Amino acid sequence: MSRIVIALGGNALGKDASEQKKKIREACPSLVGLIEQGHEIIISHGNGPQVGMIQTAFDTASNQSEKIPPMELTECTAMSQGYIGYHLQQGIARELRIQKMPWHVATVVTQTLVDGDDAAFRNPEKPIGAFYTEEEAEQLKEKYPDFVFRQDSGRGYRRMVPSPKPVDIVEKASILNLLDNEYIVIACGGGGIPVVRDEEGDLAGVPAVVDKDYASAKLAEAVGAEYLFILTAVERVCLDFGLPSEREISEMTADEAEKWCREGQFAPGSMLPKVEAAVAFARAKKGNRAVIASLEKAPLAMRGESGTVITAEQ
Amino acid sequence: MSRIVIALGGNALGKDASEQKKKIREACPSLVGLIEQGHEIIISHGNGPQVGMIQTAFDTASNQSEKIPPMELTECTAMSQGYIGYHLQQGIARELRIQKMPWHVATVVTQTLVDGDDAAFRNPEKPIGAFYTEEEAEQLKEKYPDFVFRQDSGRGYRRMVPSPKPVDIVEKASILNLLDNEYIVIACGGGGIPVVRDEEGDLAGVPAVVDKDYASAKLAEAVGAEYLFILTAVERVCLDFGLPSEREISEMTADEAEKWCREGQFAPGSMLPKVEAAVAFARAKKGNRAVIASLEKAPLAMRGESGTVITAEQ
Repeated sequence: MSRIVIALGGNALGKDASEQKKKIREACPSLVGLIEQGHEIIISHGNGPQVGMIQTAFDTASNQSEKIPPMELTECTAMSQGYIGYHLQQGIARELRIQKMPWHVATVVTQTLVDGDDAAFRNPEKPIGAFYTEEEAEQLKEKYPDFVFRQDSGRGYRRMVPSPKPVDIVEKASILNLLDNEYIVIACGGGGIPVVRDEEGDLAGVPAVVDKDYASAKLAEAVGAEYLFILTAVERVCLDFGLPSEREISEMTADEAEKWCREGQFAPGSMLPKVEAAVAFARAKKGNRAVIASLEKAPLAMRGESGTVITAEQ
Repeated sequence: MSRIVIALGGNALGKDASEQKKKIREACPSLVGLIEQGHEIIISHGNGPQVGMIQTAFDTASNQSEKIPPMELTECTAMSQGYIGYHLQQGIARELRIQKMPWHVATVVTQTLVDGDDAAFRNPEKPIGAFYTEEEAEQLKEKYPDFVFRQDSGRGYRRMVPSPKPVDIVEKASILNLLDNEYIVIACGGGGIPVVRDEEGDLAGVPAVVDKDYASAKLAEAVGAEYLFILTAVERVCLDFGLPSEREISEMTADEAEKWCREGQFAPGSMLPKVEAAVAFARAKKGNRAVIASLEKAPLAMRGESGTVITAEQ
């Protein structure tokens, strides 16, 4: 029996609550399909569209009414974990009922430790929340001098936050505890709530976003998983993506993957962090296997019939 | 060693994120003080002001911009569990560090099972979210025909939702699992996300609010707790509250408490649900003790030096 961390993309979860419920329901046969094969699973998930929605709701409402306080990104991330975890719990419990499986499912509100000296804090480059006009961005900047705004994809200005690397998963002991008792655990939503540790050892949230693929790799390492599944919209990692010479890769070593990363084969903010997270996990422990596959074909990928496998060994 | 469920009021948690962090930090010595005496604790909490804030933020923003979808109460409650649980985790972990205690702390996203035939569904009477003018309420009623609006406290119209009684705590097994491993568990936030079970056995959220005191009593019963602490702003339950004949009660039997409930001694929506929840728990199992006390004096109340104790026996 193997322990598997499955990283689901936030984009796979839809734009509002009813779409989210529907998409999760469709994804559950694949997710629970992995347990059928005798494995323990931990589900982590992105929250890009969801935390953006929550942050924008608070930004919009607090701008309009003094009754609604502004809400920091850290707290919005915590909210998104409850929002997505709740739907995943229901969807997975339903699939377990259909498959007549005795497992339980639980969501653990998760903090991810980051390093306050991470270089990312000096260069915030992850866009978050609503698009603003230049004038609106300047007004917000007066109100919140710490905020950084930049033009994003030609559609206006957005707030940029740092995306530091995960150092540890604060709630790893809780997650392990539940795993040891036939639980499917939902954890590390949105990459986890980013926190730094002060001199006394206490944690405090920081306005940042941890990449969910890096966080999932760290989570997989922390719980001693043998597999990291990064599920996405494509079936396999491709070389020369979009070119006539495009080809799918079914296996690659960490060394090969790194070489292709350096050569610019993978798109930043898209396939690149997935491959980098896969490499980090593959190198973390002997025998680790990272798999990048499509959500629909995850059980096939487990049997080596789909997806791209990344291992440290030749 | 005893197992204790502590119910914290949502009003004790403040109006915004920074106030919430501060108030939780102030409350933690009292909460952790109970473990010092050798007990296991589960913390449940209200979410009235917090879920109201989240619901109003989405109501306001979705009215103004098509980019923000309307958000149902169930999902807002799930968000509030992440939001409050995250701060409680940090505050309690800090206090454990100060007290040099080896416990862990975890938040479990919790659903509370209710009965779809509960009479409350025919009479929604719990106000939620923003105040509206009569005209605004009528416009919303056209958009959401299922919504019920009523005048509330002379300040305008508010949406009214049902407040059904809790039947079971869906995640009780997860909570027990963590408790058995030196965990302080945060659960059942805002009374839990209310769900009904369909014929096939699947759960679905319902737009309702479960009273956090009733939910906490059900949680205490479900995890086999010996104590239910309902923490509030006053030190003891009073008879003839606000009258010259006002007097504090330090002990009452469930029979006495019920008689006083019938006589109208306790204010609906305030002390009444607390006393009723205490009675339900006191009667659930022999030896159960419910305590209504102030947050500050919880450790004193544990030693019988403050608070009101409710037991089934004479």
